[in-house]
Amino acid sequence: MNLSCPLPKLDFDTINLGHGSGGTLTSQLLNSGVFNLLQNDLLDKKHDGAIFQLDGKLAMSTDTYVVSPIFFEGGDIGDLAVNGTVNDLAMCGASAKYLTLGFVLEEGLTMTEFWQVLLSIKAACEKAGVQVITGDTKVVERGKGDKIFINTTGIGQVVAKANIDIENIKAGDKIILSGPLARHGITIMSHRQGLQFETTISSDTRPLKKIIIDLINEFGEKIHFLRDPTRGGLATVLNEMAIDSKLGIDISQKNIPVEEEVEGACEMLGLDPLYVANEGLFVAVVDASIAEVFLQRVKEWEHGSMASIVGQVTTEHPKQVLMKSNIGGRRVVNMLTGEQLPRIC
Amino acid sequence: MNLSCPLPKLDFDTINLGHGSGGTLTSQLLNSGVFNLLQNDLLDKKHDGAIFQLDGKLAMSTDTYVVSPIFFEGGDIGDLAVNGTVNDLAMCGASAKYLTLGFVLEEGLTMTEFWQVLLSIKAACEKAGVQVITGDTKVVERGKGDKIFINTTGIGQVVAKANIDIENIKAGDKIILSGPLARHGITIMSHRQGLQFETTISSDTRPLKKIIIDLINEFGEKIHFLRDPTRGGLATVLNEMAIDSKLGIDISQKNIPVEEEVEGACEMLGLDPLYVANEGLFVAVVDASIAEVFLQRVKEWEHGSMASIVGQVTTEHPKQVLMKSNIGGRRVVNMLTGEQLPRIC
Repeated sequence: MNLSCPLPKLDFDTINLGHGSGGTLTSQLLNSGVFNLLQNDLLDKKHDGAIFQLDGKLAMSTDTYVVSPIFFEGGDIGDLAVNGTVNDLAMCGASAKYLTLGFVLEEGLTMTEFWQVLLSIKAACEKAGVQVITGDTKVVERGKGDKIFINTTGIGQVVAKANIDIENIKAGDKIILSGPLARHGITIMSHRQGLQFETTISSDTRPLKKIIIDLINEFGEKIHFLRDPTRGGLATVLNEMAIDSKLGIDISQKNIPVEEEVEGACEMLGLDPLYVANEGLFVAVVDASIAEVFLQRVKEWEHGSMASIVGQVTTEHPKQVLMKSNIGGRRVVNMLTGEQLPRIC
Repeated sequence: MNLSCPLPKLDFDTINLGHGSGGTLTSQLLNSGVFNLLQNDLLDKKHDGAIFQLDGKLAMSTDTYVVSPIFFEGGDIGDLAVNGTVNDLAMCGASAKYLTLGFVLEEGLTMTEFWQVLLSIKAACEKAGVQVITGDTKVVERGKGDKIFINTTGIGQVVAKANIDIENIKAGDKIILSGPLARHGITIMSHRQGLQFETTISSDTRPLKKIIIDLINEFGEKIHFLRDPTRGGLATVLNEMAIDSKLGIDISQKNIPVEEEVEGACEMLGLDPLYVANEGLFVAVVDASIAEVFLQRVKEWEHGSMASIVGQVTTEHPKQVLMKSNIGGRRVVNMLTGEQLPRIC
C-alpha cells in the first residue's frame, strides 16, 4: 500500500461507534487529518453546510457507492465516488465544481483502509478539479454495514453551449461510444471470483469532465444527448434512450469495442459485455452532420483510441434497441432485468 | 399503519438485489410510484442529474440517516432525513429549496416499509417547501445494511439579511434555546429498551426553515450564530461554539427547559439531557440588545413556548462551557466523548 501522505498518528486503529457520535471522537477523527487532507476555504468553516456563489444554470447529481470489494485493480470506492458523480454531472453538460461527502462506516473498519480511501478521494478531486465542501460521518454496528458506503452529491455549472436533452434526440442521429466495454464490471467480478487473467484487467474509473466540456465547447447543441453506461451497461442506457425518446435504436455488434482479454473473461463468466458496468465511458447521441469529426476528437483523447460509432437512431421499431450481430442476424437487445453484478459501484 | 396514498400494486413484496441493478427492476421500482409520489418538473426528467437556476449566495449540506429503529413515535427515517437537512441549511441562514435523495436498501426490506418511508418523505417535503429533484437507489445483501439508510443533500438560498458566522460571536451575546431538550434521543432510546412511560414521549423532528427565515428577516445580522443541537446534544454544540470562537460560554441549569417526563426518562436511563440528541431545536447566539424580543418571537412560534435564554458568551474561561447548577455550584460541561446513543439519526 503506497501512502504518499502518511496515516496520522492516532490512539485508535479501527473505527468504533463513538466516531459517529458527533462528539469528541468524531471531532478527533475529522481533525486527525481528514480536514487537512481535503482542505479548502469552504470546508475549513466546519459548519453544518457550505456557502458559496455559483452563477448560471446549475446541475446537481447524487450517488451512493456501495462497491464490494472497496479496493480493486485500477481504483477503489474513493475515486469511484468522486469520478462517478463528476461524470453524472458531465452527462448533464455540466462542469462539476463542488462535492459533498457522506460516509457510512462499519464499526471495525481499519484506519489504514479509511485513510487510503481518503487519499484516493483527494487525488481524484484534484484530477477532476472539484472540492469537497461539506460532509457527514456515520458509524453503524458491525454487520449492519459493509466497511464503507460513500455518498457524493455534486454541483456544477452547465456549460453555456450545452443543450443535452432526451427531447433533442432525432432519427438519423449517430450513437458514439467513447471506448471499450465492460472493464469495470469484469474487474470487480473477477476480484470476487478470485480469477486471474494473463493480463490484469483494471477498472476504467476516470473523470470525464474535461473531455465532455471540450466536446460541448466545440460541437454545442449538435450533441443531443449524453449518458455514461454504468450499472446495467450499454444495453440499459440504449434502452432507456429508446423508451424515453420514443424512437428506435439500431446498433451493430462489429462496431462495439471490447478488449480481447475482457471479451475472454466475459465468455468465461458467461456475461454479455453489453450488460456489464463501465465507469469511465460515455455514450453520445450526436447530429449525423458532426459524427465523423466528433469521433475523431474522441479518438484524440488519451482514453479514446477505441471510440466508435456504434449505431444510429431510427423511427422504425420505436422504444426498441435492435442489434445486427457479427454473424448477420438481427436481435432485440433488452434492458437488464435483474442484477448481473450486485454492488458494482 | 395509515397509508393515505395506497401502496402501488407490484409483483414483489420485498426489495431484492435486482432493484439496485440499474436495470428493469430498478426502473419498475421507481416507476411503480416513487416518481409519481415525489413528482415535480425537475425529477420528471429522470436524468442522471437535475438542472436548475438559483441566484445569489447558496448553501449546501449533506447528511446520511442511519437511525434505528426506522419508525418511532413522532416520525421515521423519512421525515428525519428531510427535516435534518432542511434544518442544517437553516442553520446556515439558508432557505432550503431542493434535495437529492440517496437510498441504500437492505435486501428483504418490505415494500410496505419502503412505501411508508416514501410517503413520509413526501409529506415532510411539502411541509418544508422543498422538492426532491434527483436520486439514487442501491441495494445491499441481507446483513450488509440495516433496512434503509438515506442520504439527503440539500441546496438553498442564503437569506439576504443573514450573516451567520462563528466569527460574529462576541462576549455579552445571549444564547437562546428554542425548546425543551432530549425528546428525540429519549424517544429512540426508550424504543430500543422497550420502555413505556405514562405519557408517550415523541421525537421533536420538524422543519425549522420558516421560523429561522422569519427571525433572520426581522433581526438580520443581530443573529450571530445558529446551530441545531442534534447528535451530541446541547453540550456538544456549545463546546464547539466555545472552541471555534475562542470564547467562554456560561449557562444556567435552571434556565434549560426539559419536560418532566423526559427528565424522568433521562434519570431512569442514567442520561444527562445536555448530551441527548434533539432534532427540531435550535440554539441562537444573538446580540444582547435583541435577546428579549428575539425570545418573545420564538415563544410565539407554535413549538417555542418553552424557549429560554440559557446563557451568555464571555471572555472568561475561553474555549470552555461552564454551568451554574440548580444547587448553586459551577461545573465544566465537556463535549460528549463517545457514543451515548448510537444511530440516533
